[in-house]
Amino acid sequence: MSRRPAAILLVSCPDRQGLVATVSGFISRHGGNIIDLEQYVDHEAGVFFMRVEWELDGFALDAGTLPQAVAELAAPLDMEWRLYFSDQRPRMAVLVSRHPHCLLDILARVQAGEWEVELPLVISNHPDLEPFVAPLGIPFHVLPVTPDTRRAQEQRMQALLEENGVEFLVLARYMQILTDAFVARWPGCIINIHHSFLPAFPGARPYHSAHARGVKIIGATSHYVTAELDAGPIIEQDVVRVTHNDSVEDLVRKGRDLEKLVLARAVWKHLQRKILVHGNRTVVFE
Amino acid sequence: MSRRPAAILLVSCPDRQGLVATVSGFISRHGGNIIDLEQYVDHEAGVFFMRVEWELDGFALDAGTLPQAVAELAAPLDMEWRLYFSDQRPRMAVLVSRHPHCLLDILARVQAGEWEVELPLVISNHPDLEPFVAPLGIPFHVLPVTPDTRRAQEQRMQALLEENGVEFLVLARYMQILTDAFVARWPGCIINIHHSFLPAFPGARPYHSAHARGVKIIGATSHYVTAELDAGPIIEQDVVRVTHNDSVEDLVRKGRDLEKLVLARAVWKHLQRKILVHGNRTVVFE
Amino acid sequence: MSRRPAAILLVSCPDRQGLVATVSGFISRHGGNIIDLEQYVDHEAGVFFMRVEWELDGFALDAGTLPQAVAELAAPLDMEWRLYFSDQRPRMAVLVSRHPHCLLDILARVQAGEWEVELPLVISNHPDLEPFVAPLGIPFHVLPVTPDTRRAQEQRMQALLEENGVEFLVLARYMQILTDAFVARWPGCIINIHHSFLPAFPGARPYHSAHARGVKIIGATSHYVTAELDAGPIIEQDVVRVTHNDSVEDLVRKGRDLEKLVLARAVWKHLQRKILVHGNRTVVFE
Amino acid sequence: MSRRPAAILLVSCPDRQGLVATVSGFISRHGGNIIDLEQYVDHEAGVFFMRVEWELDGFALDAGTLPQAVAELAAPLDMEWRLYFSDQRPRMAVLVSRHPHCLLDILARVQAGEWEVELPLVISNHPDLEPFVAPLGIPFHVLPVTPDTRRAQEQRMQALLEENGVEFLVLARYMQILTDAFVARWPGCIINIHHSFLPAFPGARPYHSAHARGVKIIGATSHYVTAELDAGPIIEQDVVRVTHNDSVEDLVRKGRDLEKLVLARAVWKHLQRKILVHGNRTVVFE
Repeated sequence: MSRRPAAILLVSCPDRQGLVATVSGFISRHGGNIIDLEQYVDHEAGVFFMRVEWELDGFALDAGTLPQAVAELAAPLDMEWRLYFSDQRPRMAVLVSRHPHCLLDILARVQAGEWEVELPLVISNHPDLEPFVAPLGIPFHVLPVTPDTRRAQEQRMQALLEENGVEFLVLARYMQILTDAFVARWPGCIINIHHSFLPAFPGARPYHSAHARGVKIIGATSHYVTAELDAGPIIEQDVVRVTHNDSVEDLVRKGRDLEKLVLARAVWKHLQRKILVHGNRTVVFE
Repeated sequence: MSRRPAAILLVSCPDRQGLVATVSGFISRHGGNIIDLEQYVDHEAGVFFMRVEWELDGFALDAGTLPQAVAELAAPLDMEWRLYFSDQRPRMAVLVSRHPHCLLDILARVQAGEWEVELPLVISNHPDLEPFVAPLGIPFHVLPVTPDTRRAQEQRMQALLEENGVEFLVLARYMQILTDAFVARWPGCIINIHHSFLPAFPGARPYHSAHARGVKIIGATSHYVTAELDAGPIIEQDVVRVTHNDSVEDLVRKGRDLEKLVLARAVWKHLQRKILVHGNRTVVFE
Repeated sequence: MSRRPAAILLVSCPDRQGLVATVSGFISRHGGNIIDLEQYVDHEAGVFFMRVEWELDGFALDAGTLPQAVAELAAPLDMEWRLYFSDQRPRMAVLVSRHPHCLLDILARVQAGEWEVELPLVISNHPDLEPFVAPLGIPFHVLPVTPDTRRAQEQRMQALLEENGVEFLVLARYMQILTDAFVARWPGCIINIHHSFLPAFPGARPYHSAHARGVKIIGATSHYVTAELDAGPIIEQDVVRVTHNDSVEDLVRKGRDLEKLVLARAVWKHLQRKILVHGNRTVVFE
Repeated sequence: MSRRPAAILLVSCPDRQGLVATVSGFISRHGGNIIDLEQYVDHEAGVFFMRVEWELDGFALDAGTLPQAVAELAAPLDMEWRLYFSDQRPRMAVLVSRHPHCLLDILARVQAGEWEVELPLVISNHPDLEPFVAPLGIPFHVLPVTPDTRRAQEQRMQALLEENGVEFLVLARYMQILTDAFVARWPGCIINIHHSFLPAFPGARPYHSAHARGVKIIGATSHYVTAELDAGPIIEQDVVRVTHNDSVEDLVRKGRDLEKLVLARAVWKHLQRKILVHGNRTVVFE
């Protein structure tokens, strides 16, 4: 985590000779000191990915002029790019239903100042978890969803998110399926936690399925939400060992800790601007 | 691993009050000193499982009289049981195709005396791995398989296994599907290693599928072979972390070490008589 | 986790023939249905350990008469024993200093009802964390400690614990060393979390030491507190992978999640009455 | 693993602005296509580390002219550097004593062609393992060591290594301590496996110490050998869970698999030229 203001540039483009030299030369030429650079080439797809972070102290361009300069650098290389500044705290919304564990874990991290993030609101389709959120002074919006009201409620949600300047959403065991239309408005910006080691046990009740199958390890998967259920680009996974002796209730208990941890790691990577999405895969830099 | 001769009794039966007392009382009454006892009750299914191991020194019954006594104990309780003696080394056959890593790992363990097992023969559908086996003086039988010859070759294999007094089979990346008829003759006696974290990626080329899906963890699964492909009772699983940077070739490389380890652990548990099968699940005692 | 009232008996004694039969026979004779039994023999030390749990429905003895009956069973066998009833919720105190993460994790579990426990008070040597505790209606006692006031403050603490009927203490990153006299009053009843993989890096600033040594894995250790610092019987440990790229600050961040998890697992095992202490080692049943 | 011939350059130098641009610009200017680049800055020490790999196809310099060009690039930047060519297979010696498991694991990898390496000889202070090596046609040299003969035997060993053009040594549970003089001749070129999670349990009989301490996890550590015993820069570590139920013999058994795996991973990283040593720490690139 850099303390002095830094710029972070994420790029991807068709692979060709000289890309690292071009981008690092650009930064160097304007007096930037690179503090982190990671690159990856998908040789099969012929795509180049890079994340580079440099200090703004002594750098000749500022937040006003840098985007245009990057755009000019990127255009001839067919480069997609995103630019972030480390001193701008992203604004995150959390969506929940009735399971408190992921929400409480996120609230604890926010309270303790572990994450450089703003949490202007929590949204739920149930009122149950409001008592955990209200004492912290964070607005808790209840938007109950039925098949008939789904679209209307999503519009209200979209309005709330826009009003609050939200940049990305975290589904902390939110048990509603978002419509394709909603998902399409937030590409690479909705992080979900699924309580299985995907692609095993997608959909509902994965712990029951895992128990029935007699697996010796259970997992949790955090991924970006796409139109297809539980099939979006995976950000992070982890597992925990179970035995024949673990009932479904035990799997649920062990799984809760896993879900919290995997979701928190995914949010951390997202906040660090370490993730690039390419098709259905993620590049997650160290 | 017990050094002095011991008896090992595995039982399962409908759960009822007093089962531990009945079995431990039986052993105690005949002067047996229990050195290990583990029990598990599947409360949902109402089934009791137990493994108990006791020293034969000072025990009133011997290998000749004990089976009958156990049978009389078991009958009124509807108990299924298996009885083993720690000084009888089981005889194992290994089946391979072209991948050497699991075979070499098993051979190393046998050579180094890690396992209390006899390995009277290795069977393969290809001649490729013979040079690894022949120098050790272990017969290597090549039984090539085509759709037309499958049944005939399985009959030859069955004959070889019987001639050699084989008790159980290890499929060390054996790339042929055994017929239902063959599998039915070896219930709970064929241990396979599948190179994925089942039930994810069953069938062929799991590393390619894992790479395409963009998972962050790959796994291996050892299970008893049943009629349904890659769906038998799971004995052991383990995983290893991968990143976007790992090509399919890297997954294959990382996976090899996992396959060796998971298969070896499953064989170890089988040799220790620690596994009971119930439906499609295993009870694997510590 | 048993739902119907159950008795849990933990015993240890010199190993001899017939112990399982004796104890299970006792339960069976009085009409008890064993729902869980685990035993372990330390063959080197010649000590037998057992945990047995049985339903009280239909059992001939009750909370009033059972202890005496167990005492009579135990005496001739030189058996140490502890008896618990699953419907009696233990009372736990949490001690903290300034790091909030372990405390917040515990509070979240208590709030969410994950643990069958009462938390009548939190004690700290600093006022900093009061804002996290007060809103939950849990008394937060500030007992600042200096070398001169240590004994007096420990006496106040002891009084508070007794008034609140506390059974065991959790040191959730409590940064004060307890006196031998205090520790001696709570044998096997103080659970600490140390932020290293003991016995590596005992004492202060283990993450700094780990970074300086260049380890590739860091750990956390939960143990019972004894007179010797960071040397008590270990209950649970876990680790997480780190790289050269992780600064001390990164180790602290990764370690926080580990500390929370390892401490929570240790408390869970303690609450389940799954732990027996023998010398400086623990027997932790599954 | 690159298939087409590639150059690999490892550099470290005082950190300064423009280093990535300078090196990547150099490669780019001579027509090199970078296929992998990783860099790391130790901000505390102010040291820059980089590994860059590029294809030699179409590159203007060859194995004859490249070293001089790199030297000219490096000099003004106070850069230490090493240059490798992917089509030159390094030559490795293995040193063993009596434990066969690590040796057998290495032999299996060499036999199966997993590693791009030559193994011209195995050296041991005992004759015991010769039967595992001789059938493969690999010379096995027995150099028994006593305090009196140590220096003379090390000189013979040094001569053997030089005759065989050995580039690095693997101590596969070699139970002799090498003299400082010998170690000094092979800086960063001797890879050892220690059977504990260093810095816990250095020296002899770590499994006994781990058992006595009652740890819940055991580990293995691969490191470069330096003058101080078990204190050299750590390359790789891993762990496995144990319980109270595991005897010292069980720890030894579980540990063997860990030792094999950790040593093999360290050798793999070394072969991939992914490791830089700085003081007592390693930079191990992905």
